[in-house]
Amino acid sequence: MDLHQCDAFVKGVLEGNRRWIAKSMTLVESSLPLHRTMAARMMDGLLPHTGKSVRLGITGVPGVGKSTFVENLGLYLANKGHKVAVLAVDPSSQRSGGSILGDKTRMEQLACHENAFIRPSPSGETLGGVAAKTREMMLVCEAAGFDVVMVETVGVGQSETQVSTMVDFFLALMIAGAGDELQGIKKGILEVADAIAINKADGDNLERASSARQEYEIAMHMVTPESPTWRPPVLTCSSMLEGGTVNVWETVLEHRRKMKETKEFEQRRRAQALDWMWHLLETGLKDRFKENPDVRANMPHISHQVENELMSPTAAAERLLSYV
Amino acid sequence: MDLHQCDAFVKGVLEGNRRWIAKSMTLVESSLPLHRTMAARMMDGLLPHTGKSVRLGITGVPGVGKSTFVENLGLYLANKGHKVAVLAVDPSSQRSGGSILGDKTRMEQLACHENAFIRPSPSGETLGGVAAKTREMMLVCEAAGFDVVMVETVGVGQSETQVSTMVDFFLALMIAGAGDELQGIKKGILEVADAIAINKADGDNLERASSARQEYEIAMHMVTPESPTWRPPVLTCSSMLEGGTVNVWETVLEHRRKMKETKEFEQRRRAQALDWMWHLLETGLKDRFKENPDVRANMPHISHQVENELMSPTAAAERLLSYV
Repeated sequence: MDLHQCDAFVKGVLEGNRRWIAKSMTLVESSLPLHRTMAARMMDGLLPHTGKSVRLGITGVPGVGKSTFVENLGLYLANKGHKVAVLAVDPSSQRSGGSILGDKTRMEQLACHENAFIRPSPSGETLGGVAAKTREMMLVCEAAGFDVVMVETVGVGQSETQVSTMVDFFLALMIAGAGDELQGIKKGILEVADAIAINKADGDNLERASSARQEYEIAMHMVTPESPTWRPPVLTCSSMLEGGTVNVWETVLEHRRKMKETKEFEQRRRAQALDWMWHLLETGLKDRFKENPDVRANMPHISHQVENELMSPTAAAERLLSYV
Repeated sequence: MDLHQCDAFVKGVLEGNRRWIAKSMTLVESSLPLHRTMAARMMDGLLPHTGKSVRLGITGVPGVGKSTFVENLGLYLANKGHKVAVLAVDPSSQRSGGSILGDKTRMEQLACHENAFIRPSPSGETLGGVAAKTREMMLVCEAAGFDVVMVETVGVGQSETQVSTMVDFFLALMIAGAGDELQGIKKGILEVADAIAINKADGDNLERASSARQEYEIAMHMVTPESPTWRPPVLTCSSMLEGGTVNVWETVLEHRRKMKETKEFEQRRRAQALDWMWHLLETGLKDRFKENPDVRANMPHISHQVENELMSPTAAAERLLSYV
């Protein structure tokens, strides 16, 4: 591969060629310096063709039914003629060696649909982690003509917050429980969700889902909404019934309509891009700092003194910064 | 002032001399390089004598009755023989030119009590902002023999999160409201609070406070607690009645006992010190980066391209990092 090939990548992706889409994602995933340069050039070629999809983030703890939700909603949209891409940010896959989405049997029907494209979580460590790559993959999907991109995260570490900052609509999937069994809401999730959906609202579970909905409504009621125009609703849905997730999609579209009216849609996207750049800058600066030989040599001792309150954090920071 | 004076500062503070305490805080507040060096040396001398106080953080929006709460609880403790210091992190005072605590009439009785010491918010910009200075002032208070340090924040910007990372117990004060009037919970406050107290639970307001308490209990119920040993309770209190805040203090002590039993107390303090050092390091690295001439020259153009999706955040970050 060399730099001249970049044009072929761009052309292939813009034509919606699946082989080129997959290849370009592999390129984006790579950490090799040449590949990084190629990927950057390819992204420059693709960027003018991005931005037109509905970017939908979905989070939820394991067991909440994320895969079946994505399959249900994805099939509904693909059957309506939408081109649907599904990406995953799943930091845990780095450890287990396999992603939930790699297990294609979990989304059998959607994976085979001609209008759908499913890509498991990227692996490996880079600037900004797996989420950084997922963000670029999202742009590849948009350039390839997908008009709905779903980004799924299992919510390990910072992945939820990172995904919420790359999508237009961030959905938190929950299930009904009783008392203490009701799964805890992860740090800050109430604040970044554009909607909460209680999944598995079907059969015997309907009543419990409905009362969980009421409880979440009280909780959401006490959180200051991100946007003055949108108070995140609490919905119920079923991923087992055909059309059981359509109300969620309608909420996404309603949100989009309102946000576009007030120009918050464009503002959010602009702010997201800039925030992401700063996130990458901060990560990069910190990584370089940690690699400095003097910092490496002195960090263990200084950290130990700080932990044991023998040196103030301020003095320690000033000392460490003097090395770089 | 020169470096030899540092010993006088240390001696004066350790003796609990109010004039030296005040002078040392002024030294901590200063941004002059000589003063920074002196403050660092003074802190080295004080650090072995710190760590023994109950560090209590208090947040709440204006109108919630923070000052009267602090006065009520502070007087109760001071009358019991505790030595009580009150510090404020109030970034807004930088703009208005006056801090709420500067307005001593708000804590008239406590301010005059021989066992109490009240210090308004520091002003000015430094590494880590006003919270950085407040953290050092807290250590000065401890070295001076104060066994309860209350850090009050009005919750502007990041101050709440910063205060929550410097205290042993973080209390969120709320008041009862009805429906939409119930004040919004600020980003992440549910997750960092060790307890919520509904203030103004007195007179005609008792019933409303009690129902607000129930609503917050539902909300808190859905948040995963920081500690496996402590589920943050929702209390009611009154700052107008003598002894109306004692139950809050008892909760603080109960928390302390449990955390010490499980060693989480020491762990939290160690982690806080280290996290704070990293916060200062990150701030410092970012500030230096922004001052780099090439970064300054290129940042506006690159930011503009990123905002308008003409350059990917990844490419922009890589380009900007190449300048330093």
